[in-house]
Amino acid sequence: MKWIPEGGVTSPVGYRAAGVACGLKDSGNLDLALLVSDRPCSAAGVFTRNRVVAAPVIVDSQTLAANRDRLRAVVANAGIANACTGQAGLEAARRTQRLAAEALACEAHQVLVLSTGVIGVQLDLEKVSAGIREAAGELSVEGGRSAAQAIMTTDTRPKQLAVRLELSAGSVVLGGMAKGAGMVHPDMATMLAVLTTDAVIPPEALDGMLRLAVGRSFHRICVDGDTSTNDTVLLLANAAGGLPVADTDEDREAFTQALVAVCVGLAQAIVRDGEGASRFVTLQVGGARDEEEALQVARAIATSPLVKTAFAGGDPNWGRILAAAGRAGVEIDPDRLALWIGGGEIADYALVREGAAVAFIEAEAAAILAEPAFTVRLDLNQGDGEVTLWTCDLTQAYVRINADYRT
Amino acid sequence: MKWIPEGGVTSPVGYRAAGVACGLKDSGNLDLALLVSDRPCSAAGVFTRNRVVAAPVIVDSQTLAANRDRLRAVVANAGIANACTGQAGLEAARRTQRLAAEALACEAHQVLVLSTGVIGVQLDLEKVSAGIREAAGELSVEGGRSAAQAIMTTDTRPKQLAVRLELSAGSVVLGGMAKGAGMVHPDMATMLAVLTTDAVIPPEALDGMLRLAVGRSFHRICVDGDTSTNDTVLLLANAAGGLPVADTDEDREAFTQALVAVCVGLAQAIVRDGEGASRFVTLQVGGARDEEEALQVARAIATSPLVKTAFAGGDPNWGRILAAAGRAGVEIDPDRLALWIGGGEIADYALVREGAAVAFIEAEAAAILAEPAFTVRLDLNQGDGEVTLWTCDLTQAYVRINADYRT
Repeated sequence: MKWIPEGGVTSPVGYRAAGVACGLKDSGNLDLALLVSDRPCSAAGVFTRNRVVAAPVIVDSQTLAANRDRLRAVVANAGIANACTGQAGLEAARRTQRLAAEALACEAHQVLVLSTGVIGVQLDLEKVSAGIREAAGELSVEGGRSAAQAIMTTDTRPKQLAVRLELSAGSVVLGGMAKGAGMVHPDMATMLAVLTTDAVIPPEALDGMLRLAVGRSFHRICVDGDTSTNDTVLLLANAAGGLPVADTDEDREAFTQALVAVCVGLAQAIVRDGEGASRFVTLQVGGARDEEEALQVARAIATSPLVKTAFAGGDPNWGRILAAAGRAGVEIDPDRLALWIGGGEIADYALVREGAAVAFIEAEAAAILAEPAFTVRLDLNQGDGEVTLWTCDLTQAYVRINADYRT
Repeated sequence: MKWIPEGGVTSPVGYRAAGVACGLKDSGNLDLALLVSDRPCSAAGVFTRNRVVAAPVIVDSQTLAANRDRLRAVVANAGIANACTGQAGLEAARRTQRLAAEALACEAHQVLVLSTGVIGVQLDLEKVSAGIREAAGELSVEGGRSAAQAIMTTDTRPKQLAVRLELSAGSVVLGGMAKGAGMVHPDMATMLAVLTTDAVIPPEALDGMLRLAVGRSFHRICVDGDTSTNDTVLLLANAAGGLPVADTDEDREAFTQALVAVCVGLAQAIVRDGEGASRFVTLQVGGARDEEEALQVARAIATSPLVKTAFAGGDPNWGRILAAAGRAGVEIDPDRLALWIGGGEIADYALVREGAAVAFIEAEAAAILAEPAFTVRLDLNQGDGEVTLWTCDLTQAYVRINADYRT
């Protein structure tokens, strides 16, 4: 598996894309992305678990349920989420499908739609219509990057990746783009990702591999049970390279590994670009009775405002981390807890052993937490369950962004 | 029931208190409170549900289990939480009991101890010892206020209240003091409250009434399942007024009502003084299938950073509120949701009906949210369960306090 420099959704054979500005964002920035495959694709999607789901999520779920083997295009808009918009919102999402189908000479049920932005506002279909027509006229392989830009909201940079991987029949390409989210509780902000490949994969295989990869990547930045109204990950396989993911353990494993790598790369990019984030934190929780309990403890730590503000202050405040673990709803023995941090050239710097502080040097610990990226490792010492989560700090800039920005 | 102006823990007959500075806070502010009853008290306590509990919580639980009918004193220190301090911390809490017993000529198991402040640091027993001796020499009825000051950490003002209430045999007094907490997730910061009465009440009755009152007050600012290592509410009844809460529905009801009123008053004071808070929000969720589901939805809203930053920005961002409700883990029908806000002279200003925005005027809604106190009311329209929660906004000042302050 090799990373493709500057790669993205149009790195696999047979995809073109464009990003245009159609006026949905007040800023005048790019706000509508169109991704098109030259030929019909297998497709799979993973959607938000929020009870309040946006219109595009309902429409895409229905579309994929009826037709997951001949998708042609994805239309994504930023600026307006088309969530809490009732029947009119559903109709707008379906109308978007038809507008794209007209522009691309395909059928409406071959189009998937994505939206992100303000909740409760209706899509302006005249703007969307003009945007789709313009984008359809500008489709290109180079357009992958502008498509990744067009789906940004509070993101400060586009997020895209691609890899070339070897299968038994030869090499195929897998690409992807994503947009991020407020990172304190990513549950509420929208995370969108679109993945593409030129390999030959039937939809049923695609679905299982996508769920597995999402579980190990986007759900490890705390998105899962706590998701926004719009969160969506789509995977298209257009078979344009002609090479199959063979029905063997080796091929499935190779493709899944690449899919996990691309998804982890995009998920980490989302965290690194978290709203107002100044620190990238890799949080490892081990020694739990099982993976589920490790995840529960890791989430309690990763979502604690007191822990996250301590990270922002570069404060080795291990007490807040232990206290967050203590309220995770998992039976833990405080006297068994051990905690390390690591960053820069220091791998495992011990702060806590058997539930109490070791005699660490405050300045050394603070120096590790002054790194732009560091690791926090908590051992519960009561089993083999472990998990890694990626998170970031909570800064004053986060509050400024979210007090002023209407999502 | 009548509020007593400037009332507090020493308003009931037979209590004296003092607050002194013994050097546990670097600031030199008051940091040790001593509350003493002239005669033995019935007592009850409600403690944190965190798995990681501070030494004073363990010691008080044991003390109350062994001896809940002849308590004499409470020693509370701020600056150091005595949490995650292992066996040495437990010994320090027990030694604090003995030091107070010596100073007051009572027994160690007649003393309850409270701590709040930095986790993971051992109590300096020389300072505590000197503080207890000094406080014991300064005990007075007027000292209630300085005791309330001595338990403050990031609180900006002391919190105390007292009421006089009528029982069948005559009037009794109930007082209380509390310290607050970071309010985004009050689960992690410490909330302490001490309540006193001169009524005659056996400990078993005391315990039930305290649990009920805490459930309707401190647990309604989101403290409960999510509590810090130290959260504690204590209630002492010293019988010094000589009048009983008779074993009748009327008397129990009258005392419970007063207890709820004092606890709600203190709980609201904690929210109003939340770290960096600029808005006091009364959140009502109704129309749930039962109270438990209403509470679950209310908590999801009250702890959502995106909702709380919108409050800070005075933004009528109803979409974030509906999205938070949607991820609460409760089966809700988005198309039935209705939402109102109220503040100043406006009671019920509709934002959402049947899951979609009504045609409200943005400037009118923003004017309501510009009030220092306002109400948010969500109707799920699927049952009779309802709950009221008190919360506040999330401001840049919160982050500043918690990035810089070591708790």
